[in-house]
Amino acid sequence: MAKHRRDATSAGHRRRIKAHLKSSKAGLAPGSLQYVGATDPLPTLATLIEFGQDDGDFLETKFTALEQGRDFKPTYSNYWLNLHGLEDLAQLKLIGKRFHLHPLVLEDILNTQQRPKVETYPGYLFITARLMFLDEFGSVDSEQISLVVGRNFLLTFQEKPTGTFAGIRESLRNGESQLRKFGTDYLVYALLDKIVDRYFAVLEQIGERVDELEDEIIEQLNPDQMQEVQHLRRSLQALKRGLWPLREVINVLQRDDADFFKDETQLYLRDAYDHTVQLIESVEALREAVSGLQDIYLALQSQTMNTQMRTLTVFTIIFSPLTLIAGIYGMNFEFMPELHWRWGYFAVLALMGVLGCGLGWFFWSRRWIDAV
Amino acid sequence: MAKHRRDATSAGHRRRIKAHLKSSKAGLAPGSLQYVGATDPLPTLATLIEFGQDDGDFLETKFTALEQGRDFKPTYSNYWLNLHGLEDLAQLKLIGKRFHLHPLVLEDILNTQQRPKVETYPGYLFITARLMFLDEFGSVDSEQISLVVGRNFLLTFQEKPTGTFAGIRESLRNGESQLRKFGTDYLVYALLDKIVDRYFAVLEQIGERVDELEDEIIEQLNPDQMQEVQHLRRSLQALKRGLWPLREVINVLQRDDADFFKDETQLYLRDAYDHTVQLIESVEALREAVSGLQDIYLALQSQTMNTQMRTLTVFTIIFSPLTLIAGIYGMNFEFMPELHWRWGYFAVLALMGVLGCGLGWFFWSRRWIDAV
Amino acid sequence: MAKHRRDATSAGHRRRIKAHLKSSKAGLAPGSLQYVGATDPLPTLATLIEFGQDDGDFLETKFTALEQGRDFKPTYSNYWLNLHGLEDLAQLKLIGKRFHLHPLVLEDILNTQQRPKVETYPGYLFITARLMFLDEFGSVDSEQISLVVGRNFLLTFQEKPTGTFAGIRESLRNGESQLRKFGTDYLVYALLDKIVDRYFAVLEQIGERVDELEDEIIEQLNPDQMQEVQHLRRSLQALKRGLWPLREVINVLQRDDADFFKDETQLYLRDAYDHTVQLIESVEALREAVSGLQDIYLALQSQTMNTQMRTLTVFTIIFSPLTLIAGIYGMNFEFMPELHWRWGYFAVLALMGVLGCGLGWFFWSRRWIDAV
Amino acid sequence: MAKHRRDATSAGHRRRIKAHLKSSKAGLAPGSLQYVGATDPLPTLATLIEFGQDDGDFLETKFTALEQGRDFKPTYSNYWLNLHGLEDLAQLKLIGKRFHLHPLVLEDILNTQQRPKVETYPGYLFITARLMFLDEFGSVDSEQISLVVGRNFLLTFQEKPTGTFAGIRESLRNGESQLRKFGTDYLVYALLDKIVDRYFAVLEQIGERVDELEDEIIEQLNPDQMQEVQHLRRSLQALKRGLWPLREVINVLQRDDADFFKDETQLYLRDAYDHTVQLIESVEALREAVSGLQDIYLALQSQTMNTQMRTLTVFTIIFSPLTLIAGIYGMNFEFMPELHWRWGYFAVLALMGVLGCGLGWFFWSRRWIDAV
Amino acid sequence: MAKHRRDATSAGHRRRIKAHLKSSKAGLAPGSLQYVGATDPLPTLATLIEFGQDDGDFLETKFTALEQGRDFKPTYSNYWLNLHGLEDLAQLKLIGKRFHLHPLVLEDILNTQQRPKVETYPGYLFITARLMFLDEFGSVDSEQISLVVGRNFLLTFQEKPTGTFAGIRESLRNGESQLRKFGTDYLVYALLDKIVDRYFAVLEQIGERVDELEDEIIEQLNPDQMQEVQHLRRSLQALKRGLWPLREVINVLQRDDADFFKDETQLYLRDAYDHTVQLIESVEALREAVSGLQDIYLALQSQTMNTQMRTLTVFTIIFSPLTLIAGIYGMNFEFMPELHWRWGYFAVLALMGVLGCGLGWFFWSRRWIDAV
Repeated sequence: MAKHRRDATSAGHRRRIKAHLKSSKAGLAPGSLQYVGATDPLPTLATLIEFGQDDGDFLETKFTALEQGRDFKPTYSNYWLNLHGLEDLAQLKLIGKRFHLHPLVLEDILNTQQRPKVETYPGYLFITARLMFLDEFGSVDSEQISLVVGRNFLLTFQEKPTGTFAGIRESLRNGESQLRKFGTDYLVYALLDKIVDRYFAVLEQIGERVDELEDEIIEQLNPDQMQEVQHLRRSLQALKRGLWPLREVINVLQRDDADFFKDETQLYLRDAYDHTVQLIESVEALREAVSGLQDIYLALQSQTMNTQMRTLTVFTIIFSPLTLIAGIYGMNFEFMPELHWRWGYFAVLALMGVLGCGLGWFFWSRRWIDAV
Repeated sequence: MAKHRRDATSAGHRRRIKAHLKSSKAGLAPGSLQYVGATDPLPTLATLIEFGQDDGDFLETKFTALEQGRDFKPTYSNYWLNLHGLEDLAQLKLIGKRFHLHPLVLEDILNTQQRPKVETYPGYLFITARLMFLDEFGSVDSEQISLVVGRNFLLTFQEKPTGTFAGIRESLRNGESQLRKFGTDYLVYALLDKIVDRYFAVLEQIGERVDELEDEIIEQLNPDQMQEVQHLRRSLQALKRGLWPLREVINVLQRDDADFFKDETQLYLRDAYDHTVQLIESVEALREAVSGLQDIYLALQSQTMNTQMRTLTVFTIIFSPLTLIAGIYGMNFEFMPELHWRWGYFAVLALMGVLGCGLGWFFWSRRWIDAV
Repeated sequence: MAKHRRDATSAGHRRRIKAHLKSSKAGLAPGSLQYVGATDPLPTLATLIEFGQDDGDFLETKFTALEQGRDFKPTYSNYWLNLHGLEDLAQLKLIGKRFHLHPLVLEDILNTQQRPKVETYPGYLFITARLMFLDEFGSVDSEQISLVVGRNFLLTFQEKPTGTFAGIRESLRNGESQLRKFGTDYLVYALLDKIVDRYFAVLEQIGERVDELEDEIIEQLNPDQMQEVQHLRRSLQALKRGLWPLREVINVLQRDDADFFKDETQLYLRDAYDHTVQLIESVEALREAVSGLQDIYLALQSQTMNTQMRTLTVFTIIFSPLTLIAGIYGMNFEFMPELHWRWGYFAVLALMGVLGCGLGWFFWSRRWIDAV
Repeated sequence: MAKHRRDATSAGHRRRIKAHLKSSKAGLAPGSLQYVGATDPLPTLATLIEFGQDDGDFLETKFTALEQGRDFKPTYSNYWLNLHGLEDLAQLKLIGKRFHLHPLVLEDILNTQQRPKVETYPGYLFITARLMFLDEFGSVDSEQISLVVGRNFLLTFQEKPTGTFAGIRESLRNGESQLRKFGTDYLVYALLDKIVDRYFAVLEQIGERVDELEDEIIEQLNPDQMQEVQHLRRSLQALKRGLWPLREVINVLQRDDADFFKDETQLYLRDAYDHTVQLIESVEALREAVSGLQDIYLALQSQTMNTQMRTLTVFTIIFSPLTLIAGIYGMNFEFMPELHWRWGYFAVLALMGVLGCGLGWFFWSRRWIDAV
Repeated sequence: MAKHRRDATSAGHRRRIKAHLKSSKAGLAPGSLQYVGATDPLPTLATLIEFGQDDGDFLETKFTALEQGRDFKPTYSNYWLNLHGLEDLAQLKLIGKRFHLHPLVLEDILNTQQRPKVETYPGYLFITARLMFLDEFGSVDSEQISLVVGRNFLLTFQEKPTGTFAGIRESLRNGESQLRKFGTDYLVYALLDKIVDRYFAVLEQIGERVDELEDEIIEQLNPDQMQEVQHLRRSLQALKRGLWPLREVINVLQRDDADFFKDETQLYLRDAYDHTVQLIESVEALREAVSGLQDIYLALQSQTMNTQMRTLTVFTIIFSPLTLIAGIYGMNFEFMPELHWRWGYFAVLALMGVLGCGLGWFFWSRRWIDAV
């Protein structure tokens, strides 16, 4: 990961942390709605889908502004109202009034740093979840999805259009699909299942990055890698923070004390619950893998040090005696018989050669010299 | 963080620890009230706010001494008595008598190192919480807030005026505000929500310090940084020690077995509870981030060592043979043919140059020389 | 472990991780069955075993395709239908129809990366477990076994034939065996017991590898060992991920709220439960042993460093003064009386010898020289 | 901490460990009472305090031997019998007979290494707790206090007189005190509260030692400090081992299923319970602080190493080229033009000076030389 | 610990691990009994003790083979049948038949690697526990003790005679002993208490070894010590694996849902339970102590490294300038005025002396030289 990219990642991380911490400051004066998020809110765009069990019972309406008088007399038995963008507070208030939403629900919809949760209100369930994705720097980011689940209606609120639910909308248009037959409670399951699937996708990408990083570490140590290990750890922690409460949400829905879900749908929710458990295990496995990366990094760092130390020691041991010998025969004593021998010089050179090679061979045979 | 500041921080930390440990020594002789705290108590200052649901039903009185005979016949249905400073024990005893407070309650109000808790007494709830702030050295400190919640009254006791609740007092003056409509139980929620918000503010500042420290560590290692890591860890631990029991307090209030809170207020308390859970997650995330800082610190320290070792090894390897060659031709043998060669000296210099540059190039090409 | 083998291991590990992560993507459109696994599905092969309590009441049929009309009117009271290979989706659907299996059950059978679980459906239990084995690279791999347990029938689905259950089939042919007498619920126990036994076998092999690795580490350090430590850790974690839920599965069966198991069989299930607990303890013991390996590795690495540093220090201390002496008598001062002494040279040589040997003896006596 | 003191500490620690382990060997033959403790038992000394609610209703008797016939017909409604020293087994048996104590109770009183616990027997509660103190070497030691709580009597057994309860005895003499009014159950609370207060005192001293040690470590590293870190860890662990069960004891008393405590006293016990929770938090905080000390120690150790390595590297880099230059001009070639230059020598000296200073300045400017 | 002894220890450890893992392979075919253990089974030897409450009501019979027809019509009301050695499968089956033991019970008796557990069967309880001892290499080993507890009888099965229960047998012969009066349920307690006492003995020996090892580490580092630390850790883990479930076993017996124990005996079992809790705390304390040893080891290792590095640095710093000076005056320039000075040589020697001593004093005064 290039330095530039890492810095950007880090900046993104900090922006999110701040948004997360600021998120509940608006908690003071209930009633005064205000958007809280890491970025500015997008313009509001609503889609209303009404459908029944019969083939043609389907009506889709898009609009940007809700008229005051509109009272949602639905054409068909079930309807799903989806909002992209949370800029238009007036419209939100209108919807809140129409569906008798509690002020705290509207507040939580606007406060986009919620922890996933499910809350029972008279006549509806309020669910928040987080849609995970990797931003352009490979960092885990998330968007809030809020769901209001009534007896035969479903309201969803998203920060921005992501295309995640396009397939579901397509399925709804098909009169034969299970979605049409099973009603809004099954639709809730389908949306949650999509959200769970996004975790699989994000986790897979992180898993690949862990593998790549392991290869990079083994090939060539680099202090940036240690930072990326920490970065991956933070990403996995962010996923964990989204997953644990999501599991609880689905668990609560599956038990369904408030009786919003049909028995059949509850079986599907149990399946989604199993998937979150499996995801949690994968997150834990990756967390251990990342810990292992750190251990490998530190062991290799120490290994490098050992190799250098060995090289230094070997060189010092080989050259110290040779230099001493040269120094001895460089002394200026008057009576040094060897100096006058005919082959003295060559003998000393030979001695040095033998000594040097001997020590070299000694260390080589002990495999001390292999990494220079 | 400058040395001076750190020392001061450390001193503040120790002062608090001692206050914390001394805190319950007064536990021996119940009935004999005594102030226990990190600093001396401040002069007592009381504010009585009486209010009803109607617009004009509002009365605010400030006084420093409660007359003996005063019996708080309230003008309006709800009233809130707030005390700043805990110096005036006589006045506290008067209040205790008037509201039938248990001696242990008075003791806990004066013993300002309490753990956040909620206790049910006949006719009232006793709640303590901690108002977090950063002292002038960036160290987490806290002040005790005690609340006595009755059916239509609220008593609050603070160590010193902090201005945290000024906004709430302002809201109360406004006849249209929710606070006026919902009564004292909602007022309790509003105060607790303010206390929770202070955690967000403190945590945000610590989060910023963690980010700065990460930058500092990556830029230039310094043993003080390790101490600051420990310091941040302690700060986060102090927050945790305040938050965990606060969450329990709010959880107990939300379940409200003793029926002091209206259903509507309980919904708001559930919201405050969610905020404490979110805070706890943020504290945990920051704790992991601080652990990560330590890992990065140690890895960089080891990295520095490796770089130095490499430099030393490279220099030793390059200069050892050159010095040996110079030593050899400094020997005084009579028969050393090279010495008499016309270009011997220059040949040797050239040899040395080639050897030195060759080794240098060798290491440079292996990227061993890049950090000198 | 050779480099090549390790790379292959690692590749296998990654393939599995990806399969694991992809596993639940098919979760979106229930009803549209699709095989999900690490490798391609094998051709389907079915075996039907019908048996009663009497000696001759046994019938075994093998077939590759189920005829449409076949309705499994069993000849004897109990029957067991086993399928190898999950390629033939049409056949699976037929079986699903015949036994009224829920679409989610069929989906889970095909999605071979399930976590072990037991689910109660009207009329049958659905159980998944993982059959552990070591692949050719010594890496833990697993195959999914799905069981559908009815009142007097048992369906099993395997990814491929493994021969693990051959002994059980043999026992069934024997009219005297407990399997014949106790019926299908005991048969379920026998299959689960086999699956549990496979964990023992795999764990034993890993235990042996841990012992070997400990010997290797003590004999000669090698950075690959650190990677293998991580590899063993991952293998143990994979076992743990299979074991923990398997224990829960057996625990649920043993309590048997849905009354599928006879009291006698429940005693046997309790025994199998004890075995899983024992296995979990062994996994934990091996995990600690592997952690211990890492500690030993790092301590020995540091030890090696210390030894090298000591050697370097000793050599430097011995040769520095000798070289200095030689340098001193190599100076060219005009008036250096020693140079003119008759035995000066030999005296200096002797001095050097005494000094060198003295220092050598000094270090040897302090046991600084023992590892060169 | 001086070496001598540390050795003594360590010896004391081992003596205690052995006593702790031996403690329950006497468990074999119930009925045969035997003192088990770290030191020899002291002579037994009994004090009987009888008191009523009226001012003069107070009688204190001291004696060393209980007459056989004495049957404790109390003068006043409540009485408290306290025993110091557990040498006189005969007397203990007499008391056991008089108050119908179970043999296991007597055994536990004599076995002074009990874990704090509360046990319900017919007609009385049996409570053990540990009175913490620091021995002369700063090591945590503890004495066992056993309490037998009946309807209107209290028996206490201590290993030796410690003066901890002198204040309580004094209060009892005062007819106006709460102790006289509230009876023996409140007296039990008062004793437990004293025991809890001792933990605060011990913890404060350990906290101070931690602070001092942090200062010492930062000032000058010393391997003894690492041992003291371990020593502090052991002390905190010993406190924890006393505190956790003590909290449980007080919790059980506070719930008071056996109805030995008045409602009012239960409020006070709840207060004592809060104090133990606060103590546990302080112990945990100190444990983290001690862990932090170890981290700082290791980081500073590594820092020292880095500094030395840097110094060594700088010296080697500066002197290697200078020595080489000197070696080159010490060669004996016939044709070395520089040797004959008039200012050659001075030029070389100047070159060396420039080179040396240049390198020195280079490192100084990079802040590599600051710690020599 | 000598190398040889350690190797033997390690070998013993591995033998046990394998036995442990193999232990439940026999689980497949229930009914076919087979001995599973680390070593071969010993010849079977039975002792039957019959006793009543009256003084002379005692009968002890030893035999090696049970006659077919023998039906254990006991002479006295209670009897205890003890078996040493598990070689004689036929005899075991006879006993199984006589006492209506479930095949799984016989299997568990023979499978000597069981986890401690208690299982309720109609008419009897089946208990397994582990008798701990240190083998000749100081390694923790254990033997399985199986108990079958009926209304007035007790069967015990041991791998080999250990003499642990000799005292109990002696007590039984004494008509006055509690064992005779309280019957077989108290006998069960007495046996379990003996087993618990063995843990104390083993733990004490390990505690002493930890103390010795700490002394050895502080005196002289040795890489074998790190291995022994791991060895101690494994021993403590083995103890833990025996203790945790034993505590559960005693807890279950103490609650005694199946009503096999008299109220009085339950009090004694509660006492034994307290002992296991105390043991568990001691094991945890020793585990922390062993962790501390490892920390001390690593800190001292690093300390040694630091000392060597300091020595090396000091020597290099002292000798580099001296050698450079000698090199300078060994240069062969024609014009080097110092060379011709009368006292040049001695001046240079003096300069070297002053410089060397000065640097030496400098480092000595900074306490850099103290550990060579």
